[in-house]
Amino acid sequence: MSAVRSYEPLDVVRDASGLKEYLEAVEQRLDELFAGGFGAVDLAAQQALRAGGKRLRPLLAFLASPPGQAPPVAAGVAVELIHLASLVHDDVLDGAPVRRGAPSTWNEFGQQVALASGDRVFALAFSELAAEGRLRDLATLAETALALARGEALQRDLRFDPHTSVEAQLRLCSLKTGSLFSAACRLGAGGRRRSLGEYGLALGIAFQIVDDVLDCVGEAGETGKAPGTDLREGIPTLPLLFAAERDETVRAALAGGPREGVLERVAASGALERAHEIAHAYSRKACSYLNGDSRRRELEALAQAVVERRR
Amino acid sequence: MSAVRSYEPLDVVRDASGLKEYLEAVEQRLDELFAGGFGAVDLAAQQALRAGGKRLRPLLAFLASPPGQAPPVAAGVAVELIHLASLVHDDVLDGAPVRRGAPSTWNEFGQQVALASGDRVFALAFSELAAEGRLRDLATLAETALALARGEALQRDLRFDPHTSVEAQLRLCSLKTGSLFSAACRLGAGGRRRSLGEYGLALGIAFQIVDDVLDCVGEAGETGKAPGTDLREGIPTLPLLFAAERDETVRAALAGGPREGVLERVAASGALERAHEIAHAYSRKACSYLNGDSRRRELEALAQAVVERRR
Repeated sequence: MSAVRSYEPLDVVRDASGLKEYLEAVEQRLDELFAGGFGAVDLAAQQALRAGGKRLRPLLAFLASPPGQAPPVAAGVAVELIHLASLVHDDVLDGAPVRRGAPSTWNEFGQQVALASGDRVFALAFSELAAEGRLRDLATLAETALALARGEALQRDLRFDPHTSVEAQLRLCSLKTGSLFSAACRLGAGGRRRSLGEYGLALGIAFQIVDDVLDCVGEAGETGKAPGTDLREGIPTLPLLFAAERDETVRAALAGGPREGVLERVAASGALERAHEIAHAYSRKACSYLNGDSRRRELEALAQAVVERRR
Repeated sequence: MSAVRSYEPLDVVRDASGLKEYLEAVEQRLDELFAGGFGAVDLAAQQALRAGGKRLRPLLAFLASPPGQAPPVAAGVAVELIHLASLVHDDVLDGAPVRRGAPSTWNEFGQQVALASGDRVFALAFSELAAEGRLRDLATLAETALALARGEALQRDLRFDPHTSVEAQLRLCSLKTGSLFSAACRLGAGGRRRSLGEYGLALGIAFQIVDDVLDCVGEAGETGKAPGTDLREGIPTLPLLFAAERDETVRAALAGGPREGVLERVAASGALERAHEIAHAYSRKACSYLNGDSRRRELEALAQAVVERRR
C-alpha cells in the first residue's frame, strides 16, 4: 500500500469507497504468491513487487467495477502480475540496470533468474484468473499478453529509426501500455461496459506518452528508470520523434549518433510540449467514453492526474 | 510433418485414422502464426519450429480424443507452442548452444530475441486456446505453464546437489515434462476421461527419464542437445543420481568436480539400467490408466515406444 500512497496525483481517487480494502487485498495476495519456496526465482519476484509501483492497473480494475461491487481480487492480481512480468523481462531485454530507483531484477539476481522469474509471474497471472472461472477474462488477459509481446517486437523493429511514423509510435504506446490498461478496465467492469475498455486504452496511451516525456526531462517516470534511457536505447518515442523532425542533431542521435547535449535540444525544440498536448488529447479522448459511469468523477480525475504527473 | 515422420518409433501409431490430417492442420496453423511481420522475434520462433520436434504433444491430444472426433486444432497448437516457448527460454537459461541438432535460438538470434520470442510464443498459446472458448482448457494450460516454471525453479535449486532425493528428481520430471503431456491428453479428451491425464503424466515422467538416460550415453535424445549436458550443468537426473549413490567420482562430478571419464563410470555403475527400469515402470503405470479407451492399442504402443526409443 505504501507504493500507492506515495503516488500523490492519485490522492484524488484514493478515498473512493472500498478502494483501500480492495488494494490491500490485492497486495496481500501478491505477497502470498511469492512467499512460497521457489528460491531465487520467487525472491526476485517478491523484491520486484516490493520495490514499489503504483498499482495503477488494479486501481483501474477497481474504478471500472460496477457500483457497490469490487472486482474479484484475482483480476487486480492478474493485471499487476502481467505488468510485473513484462517489466522484469523488458529490463533483461533492454539491459536496463535500474528500475523503480533500485537495481533491476536481472541486475540484482542475474539474467537467468530474471527470465525464469518473469516466466513464473506470467504463468501465475493466468493461473490466478483461471481460478476465477471467467473465460472472457482469460481471453482478455491472453490478448493483452500478446499485445505486450507485439509491443516488444515492434519496439525492436523501430529502434534507431528516426523516421518512425507517428502512427507507428502511437501503436507502440497502445501495445506497450494501452492494452493492459484496457484489460484492467474490462476485467473490472466484468463485461458490463465495453466503453471502459476504450477509456483504458486511450488512458494508457496518454500515460505512456507522459512517461516518454518524463524520460526526456530527467525525471524517472513511473518506471523509475534512469532518465534518457529511450534516447540511449534508440527508442523513437513521441517527444524524440517530434524533436528529430526539426533538429538534425536529434535525428542523428536517435539513429545512434552522439547524444551529448541532445536532451537539451529536445527540450528547446518544443517537442515536449507537442507530445504533452497529444497526451492531453488522449486523456480527453479517454474521458469521452465515460457517460453514465458511476465512478465518472474518479475516472476523470485519474485521466487528469495521469497527464499532469511529474514522475 | 517431416519431423513426425522421421521419428520412427511412432510408426506404430502413425496410421491411426485421421491423425495425419490432424497433425498437418496443426502444422499449417503453426506456420501461419509466424508468417506475420514481427521481424526477428517471429523468424526465431519459425526457425525453432521448423528445426523439427516430434509433435508428440499434439499427437497425444489426438490420441486422447474421443473416437471419430479429433480435438480442436487449437489444442494441438497450444500444447506445441507451450513446449516451444519453454525450450527457447530453457536454452537461454542453460546457455545451451545446440537444440535439435542446430544452433539454439539464442545462439543464432541472441538472448534478447530468444527471450522476446519465447514470451510471444507463450502468449500465443493462450490466445489460440482462448479463441476455442473452453475455460477448463485454459485453466489446464495455465496450470501447466506454472508447472513448467516451477520445474525450472526446482531444477535451479537442485543443481550440483548429488544428494537430491529420488522423490525430488521424479517431481522434477513430472513438472518439466509430465505436466504438459498430461495437459495434452486432457485437452484432447475434452474433459471426458480424466484418467487420460494420469496416463499423460506417467508417460511424461517415463519420457523424461529416458531423455536423461540418453543424455548419459551420448545420444541427443528428443531435444537434440549435445550429450552430457546434464552432468555439465549439474542437473541431478535419475541415472546420474543412481550412479552417484555408488560412485564417489560421479558424486563429485555432479557436485561440480572434474567430469572426465565420468559418463563411462555412470554407464559401468548399472545406473542406466536402473533408471531405465523406472522409466518402464512409469510406462506400465501409464498403461494402467487405459481401460475402455477406444485408442488403447495406440496409446499402449506409444507408451512402449517412448521407453524403447534410442533418440
